[in-house]
Amino acid sequence: MTTDAPETRFALAKGATREIARLTSTQKADALGAIADALEAHADRIIAANAEDLERGRANGIGDSLLDRLALTTERVSALADATREVAALPDPVGQVVRGERMANGIALEQVRVPFGVVGAIYEARPNVTVDIAALALRSGNAVVLRGGSAALSSNMALVEIMRQALESVGVTPEAIQTVDEFGREGANALMRGRGFIDVLVPRGSAGLIETVVTSSTVPVIETGAGNVHVVLDASAPEEWARDISVNSKTHRVSVCNSAETILVVREAAERLIPQVARALQDAGVTIHGDETVRSLANDVVPATEEDWETEYLSLDVAMKVVETLDEAIDHIARYSTHHTETIVTADVREAERFLAEVDSAAVYVNASTRFTDGGEYGFGAEVGISTQKLHARGPMGLPELTSTKWIGRGSGQIRP
Amino acid sequence: MTTDAPETRFALAKGATREIARLTSTQKADALGAIADALEAHADRIIAANAEDLERGRANGIGDSLLDRLALTTERVSALADATREVAALPDPVGQVVRGERMANGIALEQVRVPFGVVGAIYEARPNVTVDIAALALRSGNAVVLRGGSAALSSNMALVEIMRQALESVGVTPEAIQTVDEFGREGANALMRGRGFIDVLVPRGSAGLIETVVTSSTVPVIETGAGNVHVVLDASAPEEWARDISVNSKTHRVSVCNSAETILVVREAAERLIPQVARALQDAGVTIHGDETVRSLANDVVPATEEDWETEYLSLDVAMKVVETLDEAIDHIARYSTHHTETIVTADVREAERFLAEVDSAAVYVNASTRFTDGGEYGFGAEVGISTQKLHARGPMGLPELTSTKWIGRGSGQIRP
Repeated sequence: MTTDAPETRFALAKGATREIARLTSTQKADALGAIADALEAHADRIIAANAEDLERGRANGIGDSLLDRLALTTERVSALADATREVAALPDPVGQVVRGERMANGIALEQVRVPFGVVGAIYEARPNVTVDIAALALRSGNAVVLRGGSAALSSNMALVEIMRQALESVGVTPEAIQTVDEFGREGANALMRGRGFIDVLVPRGSAGLIETVVTSSTVPVIETGAGNVHVVLDASAPEEWARDISVNSKTHRVSVCNSAETILVVREAAERLIPQVARALQDAGVTIHGDETVRSLANDVVPATEEDWETEYLSLDVAMKVVETLDEAIDHIARYSTHHTETIVTADVREAERFLAEVDSAAVYVNASTRFTDGGEYGFGAEVGISTQKLHARGPMGLPELTSTKWIGRGSGQIRP
Repeated sequence: MTTDAPETRFALAKGATREIARLTSTQKADALGAIADALEAHADRIIAANAEDLERGRANGIGDSLLDRLALTTERVSALADATREVAALPDPVGQVVRGERMANGIALEQVRVPFGVVGAIYEARPNVTVDIAALALRSGNAVVLRGGSAALSSNMALVEIMRQALESVGVTPEAIQTVDEFGREGANALMRGRGFIDVLVPRGSAGLIETVVTSSTVPVIETGAGNVHVVLDASAPEEWARDISVNSKTHRVSVCNSAETILVVREAAERLIPQVARALQDAGVTIHGDETVRSLANDVVPATEEDWETEYLSLDVAMKVVETLDEAIDHIARYSTHHTETIVTADVREAERFLAEVDSAAVYVNASTRFTDGGEYGFGAEVGISTQKLHARGPMGLPELTSTKWIGRGSGQIRP
């Protein structure tokens, strides 16, 4: 690859779309298999490139957790290869018939899944995302233009070159995988205004990154958003479920978007539930930020402020608030939620159905942990991301969400009378 | 309504969404019935308001065809009322279960259709669109914020007021229908940056209007695009089909987006087909803009320039070009098409399937008129528009395309192990 301009790379990706869209499911699986093998065969080269990034990162004073996300080891490269093989084994969405009918005049009409064309991705300094997004895009028949964080530049360049060579080795055009990493911020800006070249843009990373892409892009974006996730303990909530679902939703894995951040307790159940739910959370290492009533019913509770209702902690912290009624809980969610996932614990079928009907989030549960909002749990096999927008895809996205559709009509001379 | 700020109206619409989303199908149909009755009952008032617009339009020197689109008569008001009753009779998409399964752990998981929330619409000076979009939005459980062309201000204000009163008369919140027409251009700008209030924005009108909305909006947009539509006459095209499909695609209704604008003839069939296809088109009043070969095979052909391949005439004009092969036809379409609709006339099943597979447009036909790309023809009942984007909806859009989905899980205490 030569240093030219981002738009040149976009045109190369677009030029590859017809070939990639035409590949059979077997050809695409073989191409991904070749990529997986090449990653393992060139693990040393990848790790050497990664070492440059790590060294530069340390010199620039990058924090330990970022360095850890950036680091590649032999095991991590193997895990990347395995993940690529898993994507290769997923059902190919391209060509699936979504709807179909024989029109009254005899035309056989079908709505079939087709690739988007070129998928753009903007993400942070995590080299695994480079391989992950490329594999998902190729499996669904798309070309891809990648823009990773500059802190992972050397790693990404090595990964992209190895993936491109692997494609070539099985007779697939390497132009299907492009990177604009060398162009720095200008690469990201070009992606966001790449109308006519980039069919859909997927930002992955922090809330700030996603907000920038969503508001700046003139290309359609699939927003994978933050999760300010709520658990509601209703007046009739069974104690065991209230405790277990609160603890599991909060502590099963704290750094992910489907973990709970606020627990709302309906007043009638406050005395019955808060002492034991609070204790179970605290036993699991959680710091509770509570309102006055919560603090009167449990020990060691930090006073909650307005900011706590808005915060996605992604840590062993949870906000807890007493609401007068289920209505107030639903209002609170409407106001503060990022509309990712919410759950209610209740024994009352009327409250359960109201909650399901009135809470406007991507996933809404009754008597289940919020941690179930996940492509793997839903049986999608791969995790493209969890969409918090309402257009095109909402909630966990599988490979079909990386496709569009087109209408195909087979006629025999029909004209409109 | 008082003159406040566009954002105040957005908040009122958003405030109405929970009530509107909860309405049963019958309640929504009744509300639309009340609107239809009110339009007819207040036809005089509507026509009087429209007369103000027409007078102002004439004073401002608006052209006859725009004045005609702006004008309302008793018959047109009745037609609007009838169209509203037809929308009321359409199946309600809200609550439809799109997918569902019992998860391994016993949670009953369903993906159900839900309203977007608030649909924004930006359109030109056609008062019928005011009623049309409001009816479609309400039928699918959405609140709506309207911004019509300023030339129709008086008409739109009367229509919105009458629709709001009709909602109130059947106990539905009138805040579900908002207009920002009084705010002029600022109303449109506010809609385009109405993130957090406007869930989806539908521009309807000229290519210029749509382009502005798509590139300026930070709110998700459903693009209903222009149609530079192609007919390909393949080497093996049967003469009668070639002639009938060319004439029907071009002349059945010239001002619409699914009418043909360019006819590509594969060289092998040029001598056989062009003389008679050209004559049939000319007999129907069409002016042909042809390349050199076309001009050597037919009389009275205007020389075509590069611009002709790009033009959506929307008139009794057509571009005609000879291509060496089907490949060249597909390349030409990839380059010049707006990816709305294309058709091929052929007797060769291999060419037919290649065309269907490789042409990346919203609707692709074999041996059928391009005029079939239409919500009515597809059996959708209503015409929300024809999407030329790949995200969310592609091709004719019915009521389900005005909805999102959410995932609902009914559990019994499940947590993630």
